[in-house]
Amino acid sequence: MKALVYNGTQGFALEERPIPQISSATDAIVRLAKTTICGTDLHILHGDIPSAKPGLILGHEGVGTVETVGSEVNTFKPGDRVIISCITSCSTCDYCRRSMPSHCTSGGPLLGHIIDGTHAEFVRIPYADFSLHKTPVGVDDSSLVMVSDTLPTALECGVIPGKVQPGSSVAIIGAGPIGLSTVIISQLYEPSMIIVINRDKNRLQIAKKLGATHIVEFGPDAARQVLDITGGRGADTVIEAAGVPATFELCQEIVAVGGTIANVGVHGSKADLHLEKLWHKNIVITSRLVDTVTCPKLIELLASGSLVVKPLATHTFKFGEIEQAYSSFASAAANKAIKMIIDFE
Amino acid sequence: MKALVYNGTQGFALEERPIPQISSATDAIVRLAKTTICGTDLHILHGDIPSAKPGLILGHEGVGTVETVGSEVNTFKPGDRVIISCITSCSTCDYCRRSMPSHCTSGGPLLGHIIDGTHAEFVRIPYADFSLHKTPVGVDDSSLVMVSDTLPTALECGVIPGKVQPGSSVAIIGAGPIGLSTVIISQLYEPSMIIVINRDKNRLQIAKKLGATHIVEFGPDAARQVLDITGGRGADTVIEAAGVPATFELCQEIVAVGGTIANVGVHGSKADLHLEKLWHKNIVITSRLVDTVTCPKLIELLASGSLVVKPLATHTFKFGEIEQAYSSFASAAANKAIKMIIDFE
Repeated sequence: MKALVYNGTQGFALEERPIPQISSATDAIVRLAKTTICGTDLHILHGDIPSAKPGLILGHEGVGTVETVGSEVNTFKPGDRVIISCITSCSTCDYCRRSMPSHCTSGGPLLGHIIDGTHAEFVRIPYADFSLHKTPVGVDDSSLVMVSDTLPTALECGVIPGKVQPGSSVAIIGAGPIGLSTVIISQLYEPSMIIVINRDKNRLQIAKKLGATHIVEFGPDAARQVLDITGGRGADTVIEAAGVPATFELCQEIVAVGGTIANVGVHGSKADLHLEKLWHKNIVITSRLVDTVTCPKLIELLASGSLVVKPLATHTFKFGEIEQAYSSFASAAANKAIKMIIDFE
Repeated sequence: MKALVYNGTQGFALEERPIPQISSATDAIVRLAKTTICGTDLHILHGDIPSAKPGLILGHEGVGTVETVGSEVNTFKPGDRVIISCITSCSTCDYCRRSMPSHCTSGGPLLGHIIDGTHAEFVRIPYADFSLHKTPVGVDDSSLVMVSDTLPTALECGVIPGKVQPGSSVAIIGAGPIGLSTVIISQLYEPSMIIVINRDKNRLQIAKKLGATHIVEFGPDAARQVLDITGGRGADTVIEAAGVPATFELCQEIVAVGGTIANVGVHGSKADLHLEKLWHKNIVITSRLVDTVTCPKLIELLASGSLVVKPLATHTFKFGEIEQAYSSFASAAANKAIKMIIDFE
């Protein structure tokens, strides 16, 4: 089969690889129909994630068809159309039982990181019963592939821990795929305002189309603008979807008394926490890896039409063109790109 | 009346002052029976809190007897024995309605900070109906005076946001009056272990007597010891009751995946937040000022005997000796002192 292989300092290449085989009774082999590219894939390519070793097939998102299953897989059978969760869950360890499969002792974020991923024609999925989801009827694959990681990350790391609620004010820093997904998902909770802060004007316009009530250009004046918009109080929920110290500091300037900063960004360095200003402000800061425990709920929301994420799928490439898709995604803002859909069919 | 007055760079002095009068219909005047000294009083004396102006009577904790009440005070009458809340609550503003009187728009932490406090024979209490509590029968005043600030701070800023729960592991950094109160109050939630970390060996021994299951001396090896005690996982709840960058950093090293850092300490400077290590650990950090909304519950717990805090009252002084009590409290660890009870009667 064809697979996109990470070769360390040599970058990556589409290579010929053997089709993966069942190696444990709880495995399934899935033939990919769609995949997409995540910021984490770029981090691996940049060498930021040393646990990802050269020789690895990249990718942790995907929709496809079950090809074969191990003898202990009970929920899926060959021919089933499935969504692949980016988190592999054994379902039995302490973390899985506590709804934290992100830290599953024999699973977690394995695909395209520790084991071969979904940027290939076939992928082996361990613990298939708990790491795959059946696709619903009537939802396009481009939307469903976002259930692998993008949408649960926005919901579980941003909207839920950020406690978005009816009448509350939400500020979202960062308008990449995750930031924009939090714009869409937040609206299910009927906040009174959604303020999006970003450097790129085009993305701010997209945020507005997707439901942001206010947009603010990131810069030295951003905090003052958010305070003005919120009547001086700051935002009840601040979602950090950028992942650099400057954006995390901005969160601290714009969070309201009694508010929450929900960190979604992947941070490569420490940040200043201004406890001297925040210790008495009754605030909460959360930071977490996606657990994908809300995938069934997200699938229902997509199936019912309550959640519409199709506009995030801006670009489509054939799998043979995936290297081109990567380079386009690496300059996503300039290319007016959000999610790159990679098509195998 | 006699009152302890903060004189800016001149320090403080016991001075003669007029007895306060009702100035609003919702006021009460309380004759003090007991007060105590808080770390915040020392911060004011050191000039760390510029909102506290010279000429201020210090103190925000107290038990006493209602002397007179304004025409709109409905809950209290002269002769009632009361506990004074360190937080003044109007009960009607947005923050009070959201159970956050710490940020009450016309109240909050006023006593001994913005308006004259309880280190005096009499004190004026604004919004008396919502800022006083009737004393229960059968509980000593030395314990009740801790309901003004110490105990609700331990509960509302440490134990509750830290989500101490049956079977969980708790690490408490700092064994001052608040840290030790969290040791006592945590036990109401039946955690499996309570680890106390402090520099002072005597205080660690006291922590052990009060219910700590493990004690660790603060230092370069503290994190490793806590990890050893918790089987490598770290603590589910970490309570920061010291308030310096080094202790806040230790919290980050010892918090478990899925755990919470509850900041209780009053911080004078920023601290490093190691998001590069924490972003994926599913953690929560909380920081808040006490709201004193749990005082009725704490009073019930003291009255029922479920909560015993008398051992924290280590030293008693007459009000005439309050300056001596301050200097003893300023070197509390060396003097084996925890709470200094100041007696007016």
